[in-house]
Formats: sequence, C-alpha cells, structure tokens
Amino acid sequence: MHVLVVHAHPEPTSFNATLKNVAVDTLKRQGHSVEVSDLYAEGFDPAEKPEHYDNRVNVDCFSPLAEQRNACQTGTLPGDVHREIARLERADLVVFQFPLWWHAQPAILKGWFDRVFVSGGLYTSSMRYDQGYFRGKRAICSVTTGAPAETFEPNGRGGDIELLLWPIQFSLYYMGFDVLPPFIAFAIQGHGFGNMDEDSFKQQLERQKAEWASRLENAENTRPLPFPGWNDWDEIGRPKPEGRSAEAALRFMSQQEGGARQ
Amino acid sequence: MHVLVVHAHPEPTSFNATLKNVAVDTLKRQGHSVEVSDLYAEGFDPAEKPEHYDNRVNVDCFSPLAEQRNACQTGTLPGDVHREIARLERADLVVFQFPLWWHAQPAILKGWFDRVFVSGGLYTSSMRYDQGYFRGKRAICSVTTGAPAETFEPNGRGGDIELLLWPIQFSLYYMGFDVLPPFIAFAIQGHGFGNMDEDSFKQQLERQKAEWASRLENAENTRPLPFPGWNDWDEIGRPKPEGRSAEAALRFMSQQEGGARQ
Repeated sequence: MHVLVVHAHPEPTSFNATLKNVAVDTLKRQGHSVEVSDLYAEGFDPAEKPEHYDNRVNVDCFSPLAEQRNACQTGTLPGDVHREIARLERADLVVFQFPLWWHAQPAILKGWFDRVFVSGGLYTSSMRYDQGYFRGKRAICSVTTGAPAETFEPNGRGGDIELLLWPIQFSLYYMGFDVLPPFIAFAIQGHGFGNMDEDSFKQQLERQKAEWASRLENAENTRPLPFPGWNDWDEIGRPKPEGRSAEAALRFMSQQEGGARQ
Repeated sequence: MHVLVVHAHPEPTSFNATLKNVAVDTLKRQGHSVEVSDLYAEGFDPAEKPEHYDNRVNVDCFSPLAEQRNACQTGTLPGDVHREIARLERADLVVFQFPLWWHAQPAILKGWFDRVFVSGGLYTSSMRYDQGYFRGKRAICSVTTGAPAETFEPNGRGGDIELLLWPIQFSLYYMGFDVLPPFIAFAIQGHGFGNMDEDSFKQQLERQKAEWASRLENAENTRPLPFPGWNDWDEIGRPKPEGRSAEAALRFMSQQEGGARQ
C-alpha cells in the first residue's frame, strides 16, 4: 500500500505527533510507503476564500463551488490544494490524525476538507458516496480526546463519541472512501496526567500506541463502516423503506461485541 | 437585548450575508442593539497555534489548553480573541450565520470555537453545560444547505441534519448557552437555481427570509433545546439511569408537531 497520513496538531512533541510517528513507523515496517501531510508544519490555510483563486469564473461574486469547479477544469487550482489532491491520488489508505477540539476536528483539518475536496472535480451530484471519486481507497480517523472513554458513551457528559465523529466520517464516505472504524485514544491530557500518577499515565500511552499499531497492521483486512448507498435512497434522496439505515455505521462501535471502545 | 451575530461566509452578496442582514435589520427594528463579527471581513485566523501567544507558559511544548489558561490569567490573550470575548460578554443572544460545508460549520467558524472559547477562562471542568460561563445567554444557529430538506431527513442522502448540527450545538451548550432550535434554509444554490426556475427560487428565498425574521422576533420566548445537565450524569460523567437523555435535544426538530423542518 501507499499511505497518506494527514496530521493536524501544532506541537511536534504531542501525543498526536507520537501517534502519527507510530503510523509512519508501523506501516513502513510492513513494507508500505508513507507520505505525511503535516498541516501545521506546512502552514496550510484552512479558510476557503477568493484570494486562493487566480482565474476567477466570476469576479463579482465568490461562490466556492463555482470557483472550485472552474479551477479544476482550467487547471488553476491553488498550489496547496493541487498538492493535497496529488497525495490523495497516490494513496491506497488515508489516515487522519487529530485531537477532538470542540467536538470535531481542529479548524486546520476542517479547512482541508473545505478546500481540498473540490466540487466538480472530486465530486458531482452523481459521483458521491458508493459512487464517490475515491472508491476503492480506505480512510481511518485516529483521534485523541481529553476526557476518559466513559464520558463519551451515549448520553455521557462528553457527548456520544459516535455522534461527534459522524460528520467527518460521513464526509469521507461522501468522497467514496471505505471508512474503517476509528481509533480513539481517550484521556490524553495536553499537560499533566489527569487523575493518574505519571507511571500509570505512561503505561496507558504505551497501550494506546500498541493498539494503534495493531489496528494499522490489520487495516487491509478490516471491515469498513456499513454506510447506506445509492440503492438505499429514492430519487429525491429520501430513505427507501427497505433501504439500509445509517444507524449501522453510526452505532458501529457500540454494537461491536467486546466493544471497539476498549 | 444586545445581540452578537457571528457571520461566516466570504461573499458579501451571498444568501448567508442576506440572512445576516435580515437578522441585523429585524433585531434593530425591534429595538435591540446588534453587533456583527464578520469573520472573513475581519480576517479571523482559524488556526489555534503557538504564534498567537506572546507570553508562553511553556515555550518548549505548545499545549493549547495550557497556553489559553495562562494567557487568560496573565491578561495576554491574542487581540482578536480578546475582542471576540468582549463581544460575547456584551451579548444576550448570539446568532451564528453559516453555510453547511462538509457537514459542519466552515473552518473559519470552527477555528473561532477553537480559539475564542478559552480553557481556564471561559470554561473549567466544573464550569460547563448548565453551569457554563455563558448561562443566561441564548444562542441560535442559522444555517444554509445546498441540498433540499428531504435529503436531510434521518437516513437521507444528505445526512440527518440533526446529527450534523449536534457537535456545534452541543459545543454551545457546553459553554452554558441556552441553545434555541436552529433555523435552516435548505436548497440554497451557491449559483444557479437548482431544479427551480428563477421566479420560484426567488420566492423560496423570500419565504426563508420572512421565516428567519419571524424566528428572531420570537427569540426571547422560544424554548431552548432540552439538553441533559449535571444532575443527569454520575461523578465519572456517565448517564444516570434516571437522567435525561440527549435524545430530546438531538431529535428536537423531528419530534415537533408540524415539524420545525417546515
């Protein structure tokens, strides 16, 4: 496999950076080639805005979708977007490494979605979901949280982790990716050790690193989340009565025997 | 009331900008004062990063939470964050105006959450949710979508709109806001008129503007979404068996008689 790791944490010594390194090392050790989009290190601009487009189709009114389509067709995509798309084209597996900030991916990664998944080029009204541009490729989110796993159960104080990851995972599926169940490293303190002593905390981190490595070693054989597809919706986009529900993909972790939540 | 409108669209002639203007005009006409955070016009930087902090508590390792807390305590918050917090302090109601991009708010608004809701100052482990800093203030999301309403039903092709708005609305509740049911203007084309002719499309926009104005006129009397709170969780943060479920807040629109979905 060729693997792209999209990394979204500003601190090179963070546990997110450690997990990024675990991914690179583990995958290379298995004989895969690996490339990293280090969004902070590369100074990726997350704001989709007119200044990114040199060859505007409409200079009077900035419509992101119209400009993305035009830039694709005229070969005038912004340089960083062009680079990210080339990286995606090469990849068989895309790993997203990020901390959960405000119940979602950090803005720098949200903006990567806003700018890189260009309308008219990488998706159209018919080229989406199981007919998406990147079908055949796999994607996986590796996420750290500050709070412990228990608070992220359904109705828990941290918010149901499966609901929180739904918009990002559904976006990856929209682009055609086979989305693997996420890896979540809970209870990662940005500083200090939370309620643990230093030794217990370090042991937790070692366990999480080992688990992440093991997940990656099995990435080629892991069953993707079971999203509904074109056969499950009517022409307008409403669910067919006999169609597959989104619940199976949404509630995947809590439905696993033994619990993928650990 | 004093109202803050946080506006997140790059194009001043967009329908998002129109809805922002409807909010300003409607609220002023009612005798309220209104202030606008126009994130694109003001060049808000969405990326939380070390360069924002002049007075680092730890120059060797950038932990956003540690630097936010320290900057709060030492009065060295970044200028734009300080300004946004002052605007929030003044407001009785905060309106968020944004298009749904990749099943969430645009990166510029996601970064506003990442940077402005500062740890240690505006929230702590005990100052959250119904004990949150902004309790007593109201917030409402006004969102545009490209696809029509039908596709955003549960299991629909566009993704269940209530699931997609959950992370942002839960974040507002985390900060203590009373979150009003969202206003959603479906089927807004960035350019062109979709499957409609121009007249029908324009009529749709007029209806949506009127409905938004009416929602704002009633904002003071609207019942907020019924989130669970501290009494509903045990010490660890797991749901108490007798506690209120998140479902009521999550599934608010689909449970309304007549349907707030329109």
